[in-house]
Amino acid sequence: MTTPGPSFTGVIPPAITPLTDDGDVDVASLERLVERLLEGGVHGIFALGSSGETVFLTDPQRDRALEVIVKTVGGVAPVIAGCIEPTTPRVLERVHASQHLGADAVVVTAPFYALVGPHEVERHFRAVAAAADLPLLAYDIPVCVHTKLSVDLLTRLAADGVLAGVKDSSGDDVAFRQLLLAVRESGAAPAFSALTGHEVVVDAMMLAGAHGSVPGLGNVDPHGYVRLHNACVNGHWETARAEQDRLTQLFRIVGAADPATTAGATRGVGAFKTALSLLGVIDSNAVSLPMRRLDETETGRVRAELVEAGLL
Amino acid sequence: MTTPGPSFTGVIPPAITPLTDDGDVDVASLERLVERLLEGGVHGIFALGSSGETVFLTDPQRDRALEVIVKTVGGVAPVIAGCIEPTTPRVLERVHASQHLGADAVVVTAPFYALVGPHEVERHFRAVAAAADLPLLAYDIPVCVHTKLSVDLLTRLAADGVLAGVKDSSGDDVAFRQLLLAVRESGAAPAFSALTGHEVVVDAMMLAGAHGSVPGLGNVDPHGYVRLHNACVNGHWETARAEQDRLTQLFRIVGAADPATTAGATRGVGAFKTALSLLGVIDSNAVSLPMRRLDETETGRVRAELVEAGLL
Amino acid sequence: MTTPGPSFTGVIPPAITPLTDDGDVDVASLERLVERLLEGGVHGIFALGSSGETVFLTDPQRDRALEVIVKTVGGVAPVIAGCIEPTTPRVLERVHASQHLGADAVVVTAPFYALVGPHEVERHFRAVAAAADLPLLAYDIPVCVHTKLSVDLLTRLAADGVLAGVKDSSGDDVAFRQLLLAVRESGAAPAFSALTGHEVVVDAMMLAGAHGSVPGLGNVDPHGYVRLHNACVNGHWETARAEQDRLTQLFRIVGAADPATTAGATRGVGAFKTALSLLGVIDSNAVSLPMRRLDETETGRVRAELVEAGLL
Amino acid sequence: MTTPGPSFTGVIPPAITPLTDDGDVDVASLERLVERLLEGGVHGIFALGSSGETVFLTDPQRDRALEVIVKTVGGVAPVIAGCIEPTTPRVLERVHASQHLGADAVVVTAPFYALVGPHEVERHFRAVAAAADLPLLAYDIPVCVHTKLSVDLLTRLAADGVLAGVKDSSGDDVAFRQLLLAVRESGAAPAFSALTGHEVVVDAMMLAGAHGSVPGLGNVDPHGYVRLHNACVNGHWETARAEQDRLTQLFRIVGAADPATTAGATRGVGAFKTALSLLGVIDSNAVSLPMRRLDETETGRVRAELVEAGLL
Repeated sequence: MTTPGPSFTGVIPPAITPLTDDGDVDVASLERLVERLLEGGVHGIFALGSSGETVFLTDPQRDRALEVIVKTVGGVAPVIAGCIEPTTPRVLERVHASQHLGADAVVVTAPFYALVGPHEVERHFRAVAAAADLPLLAYDIPVCVHTKLSVDLLTRLAADGVLAGVKDSSGDDVAFRQLLLAVRESGAAPAFSALTGHEVVVDAMMLAGAHGSVPGLGNVDPHGYVRLHNACVNGHWETARAEQDRLTQLFRIVGAADPATTAGATRGVGAFKTALSLLGVIDSNAVSLPMRRLDETETGRVRAELVEAGLL
Repeated sequence: MTTPGPSFTGVIPPAITPLTDDGDVDVASLERLVERLLEGGVHGIFALGSSGETVFLTDPQRDRALEVIVKTVGGVAPVIAGCIEPTTPRVLERVHASQHLGADAVVVTAPFYALVGPHEVERHFRAVAAAADLPLLAYDIPVCVHTKLSVDLLTRLAADGVLAGVKDSSGDDVAFRQLLLAVRESGAAPAFSALTGHEVVVDAMMLAGAHGSVPGLGNVDPHGYVRLHNACVNGHWETARAEQDRLTQLFRIVGAADPATTAGATRGVGAFKTALSLLGVIDSNAVSLPMRRLDETETGRVRAELVEAGLL
Repeated sequence: MTTPGPSFTGVIPPAITPLTDDGDVDVASLERLVERLLEGGVHGIFALGSSGETVFLTDPQRDRALEVIVKTVGGVAPVIAGCIEPTTPRVLERVHASQHLGADAVVVTAPFYALVGPHEVERHFRAVAAAADLPLLAYDIPVCVHTKLSVDLLTRLAADGVLAGVKDSSGDDVAFRQLLLAVRESGAAPAFSALTGHEVVVDAMMLAGAHGSVPGLGNVDPHGYVRLHNACVNGHWETARAEQDRLTQLFRIVGAADPATTAGATRGVGAFKTALSLLGVIDSNAVSLPMRRLDETETGRVRAELVEAGLL
Repeated sequence: MTTPGPSFTGVIPPAITPLTDDGDVDVASLERLVERLLEGGVHGIFALGSSGETVFLTDPQRDRALEVIVKTVGGVAPVIAGCIEPTTPRVLERVHASQHLGADAVVVTAPFYALVGPHEVERHFRAVAAAADLPLLAYDIPVCVHTKLSVDLLTRLAADGVLAGVKDSSGDDVAFRQLLLAVRESGAAPAFSALTGHEVVVDAMMLAGAHGSVPGLGNVDPHGYVRLHNACVNGHWETARAEQDRLTQLFRIVGAADPATTAGATRGVGAFKTALSLLGVIDSNAVSLPMRRLDETETGRVRAELVEAGLL
């Protein structure tokens, strides 16, 4: 964790949280999922992120999922734990739980629901870092929290040692490129990890200077994302592009659910879980309320894409 | 709860949650606040709403605040309890806690953080109502959850007996008027309570057909809001307007905090708490992180408005 | 124009612009429309507003429509002319044309398409006022221009004599109430006209202190809006509310077009034109591209509402 | 124009429109600008885009600017002309003018100001294409028009021959990657040109499959963008990245204007014009109202970046 370079690099999939049909955490399925990710060569696991249904789980469920992931990983790769709550006091509860359960770093968004401005956002990250004994990564996901973390703020927090990195799910590649440049220039933050959360542009963002990726689709095809990462690191950009194109095609599973009756959360997590159950990795494609699981017709569409991608 | 008219009418202030300087719930201050509201003639209390810092409090703090409010009210008026969480399973945890602690109704927003669409939102409210043993009110607050509850959805849920009412903090008075008309016409929902959350247009929304109000500013001047409500109910509209104009002026306390360094949450709750501490009702104007309490200069601005309003 | 009170009060409908099936301005229909509005007792006409399809018309069409309206009104009521263009130089072109054609005032929005901030918006209104020889009203319509005119800005421009009034289509009744109070207090702007553009809450906004309304639906039922206005002015609030409820019901014609294949512009203007053609006031319900006219089924829904309202 | 590949590729800068201090089109400066772009090796010119202040110019000014650009280019490269108006009839006026003045293609956004939905947007592009005698490119710029053109819509319009290409200024690189894949697969659109409008991620988007770029900053450093483009086309990705990093640094000139008193439009166009006047290419950094020109302090910041980039 104290190497001269960024601590968190490579492919770090945001693990989904398998559920039983009764809504409990499906421990055996989660163990199989993590083992398959590790066999695929991933460089870390992001537990309790958006793909992990973290805002749908109760605190005991979150604790259970994180405990299983940490134990199954067994120290061979870092586990970074999402602490996704609306405000500072509630985030700190999750930070302390994550530390206790053995996470290697925590990931925190800007406040949400609460109406905050730039000063409150900065105070939030500084207060969390001050109270945490683990490295802190910012999770920039305006589509969920409705605040974009500015390049200036992230650079300042990096330079001050508040942040060990960022998971960028902002969709704002212009700002991400400017951040990469600013952090590089600041000099004060050689260990800052810039990870892209957008699974269909990993090649492009790696060319732009990212250190790794947090691809939801990596739950389904970890091997592909590891090949993609390695190609980028080795400067084999045409190979990377071809692999990325294949994965972009596979990403169409998120279009399997009927758009007239489902929205973002259901379509993404629902598709990843359906694919993983078709692949025999997890037992059920059950998702939390108010989402619904993909039905038979929709499952058929996922199956077709898996076949097309050579995974089934 | 089975009267022919709406169950929840009149002035139902969203009680702030007083905190000690250490961040604990200040029980003595909360008791004094509730007693003053009741002496002011309010018709109910909304516990753990946005003004109550509900998304800043831990579950034990929420439980403590609700317990104190229920006990202090002592059954003389209904206590409706906010169950503000991002998704169905987490809301249900709070619904069960609220029932156990003696609330008379629960108030629930659309899901937030999670990316949902109309089908997920409807499934959410239906699932909560099915699992709750108390009347359910919808809290329409798009500025926080980034989903507007449509007139069609609210009318359908009212007609189906899912919702006992709505607290409208949408700022969309056009939709609110259309809702009032639609619910009246549906006939199936004679007991539906339509409450406005906008403290500066209560007279106008009462003229439009609202049954009551949930004014954050009512923490500070409950007597004024009760006079305003009574004037509306008795058709004394010019009196109502004059009282509303006075209260609209008083509402300027939310402009006391420096806009360059504070945003919505801090400015509203921070001002209400500062006013209440100046009035001697609560001990401290402390607020939760990442907000900050109003400083001396800002407190001076609040004091000036209280004097202007004849409260100090 | 120099009376002690506001210059523009009462019901000032935003006249639709009738088109022939070939897309030309239908002069005879427009004359009939204006004559009926005047017979209905309206206090002014707003030409070339959003309901007038102003952003769909070429400059010669705009000139023709304004010319016909001014001539038909014949000086018995003020004609205020929309000058709706993205930026200052283009607005000034329309201001000069409007002056030349005999308008009594001009109505201007914040810049749109161009990415501007508060300083550019203020500079825009000041530059327009400085170059105009007619009173200037601000048109606050964030749903179209994506900038809300703040209470502070409007009050400052009113106090400085830049603005003679505002047409509020912001849907933000909280800000509107605060504006009414601020302008009243400023003292410097006794002649400032605050007009609401929301046809379903005119009673409420008049109670709140508005001086009049600019109701799109007033094209269809001018008599109803004049009755409503008079009831408000005379303090007959229950009468006003009943009339408003009737008009709110009639406003459902904007729901006649299939929501799966039409959006806001088509649904509003399309419905008003369809109603007016059913009432025999205009010849065709043709609308500009890319809108489409209401079809037979949709027209049937409009007819049913007109019958229900006693207009047909 | 009928080659098997896309018709519009390479670096196609959106030419700024130099103005005199009186607000007229500065013809001599515009000629010098275009000549310098051509000497820099650009592959085309985009006239009357957002950087060209098109929504600030009157129609005669637009005609004059396009005329000068077409004449100066003299047929050695394609000139594509922005036809940026809110609705179909007004766009068609500009399309016809552009054809008459010798443009090689037209570029059109989704409707703006008017409240439209997907059906109206599709009808808009189809109606424009049907009436135009030139290739039509879609301009996807939601930050200005507040509608994102969906991957499905663009692919369908490409397959139907309605669109010859897209200028993507959406900032949504995920959708852009999906579009590139979809268009490639559709087979029906081999000649579709996908151009990125984001000057700081050209390398990344070229890796992702873009055919070229429309960089506002290309006004200032056309040689850099041509080197960048050539590196990408030749698969020299590390070279491309280094050039892009240099240009990303140079792009900081858009941060020169004081953010407390200026917004997007002023900051971008104002900086490009200031840089070009410092470089001696144009005479004045004057911009249209309600923007303001950069002041001396701000100009100093632009100068510093030009020196840093080796341009001055």
